[in-house]
Amino acid sequence: MRPSKRANDEMRSVSLERGVSRHAEGSCLVKFGDTHVLCLASLEERVPGWLRNSGRGWVTAEYGMLPRATGERMRREASSGKQSGRTLEIQRLIARSLRAVVDLEALGERQITVDCDVIQADGGTRTAAITGAWVALHDCLGWMADRAMIDRKKVLKDHVAAVSCGIHGGTPVLDLDYLEDSSAGTDANFVITGSGGLVEIQGTAEGAPFSEEEFLNLLSLARRGVTSLIDLQKKAVAR
Amino acid sequence: MRPSKRANDEMRSVSLERGVSRHAEGSCLVKFGDTHVLCLASLEERVPGWLRNSGRGWVTAEYGMLPRATGERMRREASSGKQSGRTLEIQRLIARSLRAVVDLEALGERQITVDCDVIQADGGTRTAAITGAWVALHDCLGWMADRAMIDRKKVLKDHVAAVSCGIHGGTPVLDLDYLEDSSAGTDANFVITGSGGLVEIQGTAEGAPFSEEEFLNLLSLARRGVTSLIDLQKKAVAR
Amino acid sequence: MRPSKRANDEMRSVSLERGVSRHAEGSCLVKFGDTHVLCLASLEERVPGWLRNSGRGWVTAEYGMLPRATGERMRREASSGKQSGRTLEIQRLIARSLRAVVDLEALGERQITVDCDVIQADGGTRTAAITGAWVALHDCLGWMADRAMIDRKKVLKDHVAAVSCGIHGGTPVLDLDYLEDSSAGTDANFVITGSGGLVEIQGTAEGAPFSEEEFLNLLSLARRGVTSLIDLQKKAVAR
Amino acid sequence: MRPSKRANDEMRSVSLERGVSRHAEGSCLVKFGDTHVLCLASLEERVPGWLRNSGRGWVTAEYGMLPRATGERMRREASSGKQSGRTLEIQRLIARSLRAVVDLEALGERQITVDCDVIQADGGTRTAAITGAWVALHDCLGWMADRAMIDRKKVLKDHVAAVSCGIHGGTPVLDLDYLEDSSAGTDANFVITGSGGLVEIQGTAEGAPFSEEEFLNLLSLARRGVTSLIDLQKKAVAR
Amino acid sequence: MRPSKRANDEMRSVSLERGVSRHAEGSCLVKFGDTHVLCLASLEERVPGWLRNSGRGWVTAEYGMLPRATGERMRREASSGKQSGRTLEIQRLIARSLRAVVDLEALGERQITVDCDVIQADGGTRTAAITGAWVALHDCLGWMADRAMIDRKKVLKDHVAAVSCGIHGGTPVLDLDYLEDSSAGTDANFVITGSGGLVEIQGTAEGAPFSEEEFLNLLSLARRGVTSLIDLQKKAVAR
Amino acid sequence: MRPSKRANDEMRSVSLERGVSRHAEGSCLVKFGDTHVLCLASLEERVPGWLRNSGRGWVTAEYGMLPRATGERMRREASSGKQSGRTLEIQRLIARSLRAVVDLEALGERQITVDCDVIQADGGTRTAAITGAWVALHDCLGWMADRAMIDRKKVLKDHVAAVSCGIHGGTPVLDLDYLEDSSAGTDANFVITGSGGLVEIQGTAEGAPFSEEEFLNLLSLARRGVTSLIDLQKKAVAR
Repeated sequence: MRPSKRANDEMRSVSLERGVSRHAEGSCLVKFGDTHVLCLASLEERVPGWLRNSGRGWVTAEYGMLPRATGERMRREASSGKQSGRTLEIQRLIARSLRAVVDLEALGERQITVDCDVIQADGGTRTAAITGAWVALHDCLGWMADRAMIDRKKVLKDHVAAVSCGIHGGTPVLDLDYLEDSSAGTDANFVITGSGGLVEIQGTAEGAPFSEEEFLNLLSLARRGVTSLIDLQKKAVAR
Repeated sequence: MRPSKRANDEMRSVSLERGVSRHAEGSCLVKFGDTHVLCLASLEERVPGWLRNSGRGWVTAEYGMLPRATGERMRREASSGKQSGRTLEIQRLIARSLRAVVDLEALGERQITVDCDVIQADGGTRTAAITGAWVALHDCLGWMADRAMIDRKKVLKDHVAAVSCGIHGGTPVLDLDYLEDSSAGTDANFVITGSGGLVEIQGTAEGAPFSEEEFLNLLSLARRGVTSLIDLQKKAVAR
Repeated sequence: MRPSKRANDEMRSVSLERGVSRHAEGSCLVKFGDTHVLCLASLEERVPGWLRNSGRGWVTAEYGMLPRATGERMRREASSGKQSGRTLEIQRLIARSLRAVVDLEALGERQITVDCDVIQADGGTRTAAITGAWVALHDCLGWMADRAMIDRKKVLKDHVAAVSCGIHGGTPVLDLDYLEDSSAGTDANFVITGSGGLVEIQGTAEGAPFSEEEFLNLLSLARRGVTSLIDLQKKAVAR
Repeated sequence: MRPSKRANDEMRSVSLERGVSRHAEGSCLVKFGDTHVLCLASLEERVPGWLRNSGRGWVTAEYGMLPRATGERMRREASSGKQSGRTLEIQRLIARSLRAVVDLEALGERQITVDCDVIQADGGTRTAAITGAWVALHDCLGWMADRAMIDRKKVLKDHVAAVSCGIHGGTPVLDLDYLEDSSAGTDANFVITGSGGLVEIQGTAEGAPFSEEEFLNLLSLARRGVTSLIDLQKKAVAR
Repeated sequence: MRPSKRANDEMRSVSLERGVSRHAEGSCLVKFGDTHVLCLASLEERVPGWLRNSGRGWVTAEYGMLPRATGERMRREASSGKQSGRTLEIQRLIARSLRAVVDLEALGERQITVDCDVIQADGGTRTAAITGAWVALHDCLGWMADRAMIDRKKVLKDHVAAVSCGIHGGTPVLDLDYLEDSSAGTDANFVITGSGGLVEIQGTAEGAPFSEEEFLNLLSLARRGVTSLIDLQKKAVAR
Repeated sequence: MRPSKRANDEMRSVSLERGVSRHAEGSCLVKFGDTHVLCLASLEERVPGWLRNSGRGWVTAEYGMLPRATGERMRREASSGKQSGRTLEIQRLIARSLRAVVDLEALGERQITVDCDVIQADGGTRTAAITGAWVALHDCLGWMADRAMIDRKKVLKDHVAAVSCGIHGGTPVLDLDYLEDSSAGTDANFVITGSGGLVEIQGTAEGAPFSEEEFLNLLSLARRGVTSLIDLQKKAVAR
C-alpha cells in the first residue's frame, strides 16, 4: 500500500479558493493536500520588448517557495542572489502550460504574470501551481472583461490542469506526496487541457528506466486525475 | 477624520493564528487589518561562524514580500538578484527586536531563524511582522522545551511587539494603513517590551520636521497600541 | 516534405569523434548535422558535500553555448553574470540521463563532470550532447580502468542516447534541425538506454495540444533514432 | 568616567573643511575626532525615471567605507559584489536627512548625489556624514547659484546635522566614539534641523530596553550637540 | 635546451583555418601547437551608447575558455557569475589590438564583436587569439564588402599579430608553451602590425627583474615571430 | 609645449606622506600633482588556500576609486555589483609589482593586503599607487619587525616605483596628467626597482603604432622619473 494510504488512483483532497488577494486582478489559493500554493495574477499594460507593436500579448509565470515551506529550511533565493535551476524550470513550465490555452492576439498588447508562491510544500507543487494558476488567470481575464477590455471566451480557449504520477513499489499511483515522490522509481508530470489534449509531458526515471507500458499506465492515471481537477475548476469558477 | 475612519487611538483588527505551518517549529499568521504576514520559526543546530564554540546561540530574521502583496506588482527579489535596502533594513530590525527579549546563553549553541513573509500588504508590515514573529519564536522555544532542550522561561525573557504611529492632518494617529502612511507627515515605529521598556524607536519626518511634543504624543499612542498587542499575544499563547 | 528534405524517419548525418582533447580524461566531438557539441569528461577526486564519506560518487554535467554558435549572436552568459533557465534545465537533463546508466557506488567517492559546449547550433543540441557525453564518460571510465581505479563494466551499466522528434506539417518527423524545430507543432525529446528503457521523456505542445496517438508515433520514431545512435556509439568505442 | 575622558555632554573635536575636491561641485572633509568622512556632491542633469517631466529634482546619497577604515580590514564591497544592509540603511538615512531641508521643486529637474566615503572610522560615521554632506550640498547649490541655475535660498530651506548619543555605564553621553559605542547599553542617532525640528530619530537598545526618561535625556544631549554642529556649519560656509 | 625542444627562435606549428562557422560573418580556428582558439566575428547594426549618431563604428572582443581547456578543470565563469580579472584583461587587449588597424569611421556606425574561445590551451592563448581574430575580422569585413556596405581596404588598414617571448634558463625564447611559460623568468607579449609598428607591449618579471638588453632581445625575437605569423595570415586570406 | 607646461622630462610635484591612518599597519598618502591615492597596508595572519602550510606568505593589492574622484561621477562599483576590467587589471599590476621586491618565504605564512584608493584622479593613478604602496608595505613590515615577527631587510629586497610616459604631439614626455593622457598617441607604464631592474612594462598605442626608437625614448624618460621617485621614497622612510 502507498504511504498515504490512498488508493492508487486516488488524488489528495483538492481545494481551489478564489479571491484570496485584495490586490491581484485574479487569485487562487490551491491546496493539493498539504501542498498549498498561492496563485496571484497581475495585469500589466506593457509587453516584453520583442512583442512591442505586435498587437499580441503575453502570459508568463513566476514560481517561488517560502524558505520554510519544506521540512528543512532552504536558503531564501532573494538572499542567495539567484533562482535555482529547479525554480526556473518550473516557472517556464507553468507559463508554457497557461499559454497553451490562451489566444495571445485576443488578449491584446498586455502582459499577465501569474505568481505561484508555495506557502507549504508536500510534493506536487508544480502541478498544483498550474491547476491554481488557471483559476487566477481566469479571474484576471474576468476582471478585464468586466471593464470591456477583452472577450474572455476568445482569450481563454480551454481549461488546463496538471497532476503527477509515479511508480511506487512497482505500482503506478496518482498524485504523489513528498514521501511517495522520494521513494518513487519513476516520476512524471502531465499537463492536459479540458478537451483532453496533451500540453506537456515530463517523465523521469529516478532509478531503473521505465517501459512504454508503464508510461501509458501513468498517462491513463493522469487523465483521470486531470478530469477531476478540471471538474473542480469548473465548480470553482461557477460560484 | 482619518481615511480608515478609525478613532485616532484605534488599532486595526488584529489576529494572531498559531500553528499554521506543518513544518516549522513555531508559526504564526499575523493580521493587522489587510496586512497579513506569515511568520515561521526554524530551529537549526548550527550558529554563525563567530559564535562557534561560544556556548551562545543566535536569533535572526528574514523578511520578504510576495511580488503582488502590494497594489502594484513589484519585481521578485530572487529574480532581480538582490534584496533591497528596505528589505535588509526591516529584517535587521525584526531580528534585533527579538534578540532584545532572548537570553542567547540560555538558548545554547543553536540558531532560530524567523522568516516573515508578507502575503498581503496594507501598511505596517514590519510592526505586524515583529508582533507575529514573537509568537512564532515562543512556539519554537516551546517545541524545544517539550524535547527538554531548553527552559523556555529562561530563554524568553519578555514579550515584544511593535506598532507604527504617524501624524495625519496634524493629528497623531495609531497604526497607519497604507493610505494613511502615504499621506502622513511623520511616520514612526516603536518596538516595546511587555514590561514597557523601549527596544527600538524610529521616527522619520516625511515632509516638515516634527517637534518633541508631537513625538511624545506618538510614543504615548504607541504604548497604548503595544499594550493591546501584548494582550493579544498572551491570549494567543494561552490557548 | 520537411525543410531538410530528409525522410520523416531519417536522422541527420551523425558522427562521434573520440579523443579530441589533450587534457580531458574522456572527450567526444559529436555532430548531428550542423549541430556540433564538444563533450569533455573531467575526473575529480572530490564529491559534493552531501556525499562525503558515503562511499558513493557523482556524475554531473554542465552545458554552454559559444555566443555565436547560433544565427544571431547571444550575450555571453559569463558576462551577463548568470546562466539562463534554459541552460540550467539542459544541464540537469544531461546529468540525470548519464546517472541513469551509472552505478554510483561502483564509481567510488569521486566526481565526473561532463562539460558539453555547443560550438555550432542547428537544433537538437541537448540530444546531441547526451549522445556525445556518454562517449566522453565511457572514455573517462576507461582512463580510470586503465589505472585500476574501477571496473568499468560495473560502473557503466548501459548505453544512453537521445533524440528529438516533432510534428511538422501534421506529420511526425525525426531529429529536428533548427528550421524544423521553429515551425514544429509539437516538440519532444526522448532519452533511451541501450536495452530500450525510457530515461527521460519531455513533450511540449508549441501550438495546439497533441494527442496520445501522436505522442506514441513520436516515441516510435525516437526508438528508431536512438537505436541507430547507440549503434554509432558502439562502433565509436570499438575503434 | 567615559573611556574618551570627555565630559558627558562634550563632543569630540569637529572640523569641516570645504573645497577639498578638484572635481566635485561641492565638497567637505568632516572630522568628528578620528572619524573622517569625505563628502562630495555631484550635480547631474538627469533625474530618476519616476521624476522625469515632473519639474522636480532629487537629492540622494551613497555611503562607503574604505576597507581599512576600521580596526580590522573588512572585505571591499565592490569585490564581494553587494552592499551590506548596514551600508544601504545608512545611505538611505543620509539622503532622507538632506531632502528634509531641500525644496525639490525649486531645485528643478536635476539630481545631486552626495557621496560620503569614510576614510577613517572611530564611531559616529553616519552622523558625521550627514553633518558634512550638508556642507557639500550647500556648496554644490552655491556652484549652481553662481551659474544662475537656481536661487540657493529657495532650494536649501535650513541647516541639518546629526549626532549620536548613548547610555554608557548608566549615564547618557554625547557623541560616542567606537570604544564607547561598543560598550553602550543604548545607542541613538538624532537628525535635527537648524530651527530645532526633528528629522530622524533612531534609538536601539543594545542590551536592556531603555526608558522614556533615558530617551529624553539622550534627546536633550543631542540637541546640545547639534546646536554646536550647526554653529560650525555656519562658520564654515561663512568663510 | 627548452622543454619543447624547439630552437630558441622557433615558433610552434601554426595554422589558420577560415570559414569554420556556419553562422558567423567571419571565422578562424587558429592553432599555435596545442593551443586552439576559435575566433568568430559577428556584425551587429548597433553601437555602444556613446557612439550613437557619431557615424563611427566599434570593434570589440570577448574571450573565454572552456572549463576543461586546461590541464585541470576550472570553474565555468558563467556558473561562478563573473569573469575573472585575467579574462577581462585579455579581452580588452584583443580589442585594442584589432582597433589599432581599423578605421572606425570607414566602418560606419556598426559594431563587430570577435569572440575568441579557447577550445584547448597550452600557453599563448591571448597571442593566438589576436592572430586568429584578425583573420575573422578580415573575413567579416569581406562579407560586408560583398554586400557593398564598406570598402574593406579603407576599413582594415594593416595586419596585426601577436606572439609571446620569455627568458627560459637565461636564454630568450620565442612562443612559449604552457610548460615553458610556467618556468620562464620573464614573460612578454608583443602585438605588432604588418608594417612593423608596435601596438602593445606587455612585459612582466615573474621572478627577478629583467634588464633593458634582455627586453630588446625578446622584442627582436618577437619581430621575427610576428613576421612569420603575418605571412601565414596573408597566405590564409589569399586562398 | 605640453598642456601642463612642464618640461618633457619633468614630473609633477610628488609627495609621500606616511602614517596617515590610525588603524593600518602601514600607510601612505601619495600625491602625483592632483592625483591623490591613499595606500593602506593590512596584515592578516592567514594566507590564500593554495599557500596553506607552505611556510610562504602573500602580498596582494586592491584598487578602488571614489565615485567622484574623476571629472564626471562614475557609478560606485559596490553598487553596480562588480569591479570593472580596468580595476581588476590595475590591482593585479600593483600586486605583481610589490611581490617582485618581496621574499615571500622570509615573510612567513601571512598575507599583507595593500588597499590603494584613489581620492582624487588626474592621470597616472596606477603608477602613483605602486609608488605609494611600496611605502605602506615598508611601514607594515616595520611594524612587524618592531614586534620581532620578521627581519625587514630580508623580506623587502629592494625599492619599486612606477611612472607613466607618453608621446604628446610627437614628443616623448614624462608623467602624463589626465589631459595629456587623453591626447597622447602612445601611453606606457614602467615599473622599475631601486637597482634599475624592469618589473613591468606596458605600452599601448592609442592611435598610430609606435616605433622601437620611440619606445626606448619613453623607457629612458621613465628611468629618470623612477630614480627621482625612489629618492623620494628613501627620504620619506628615513624620516
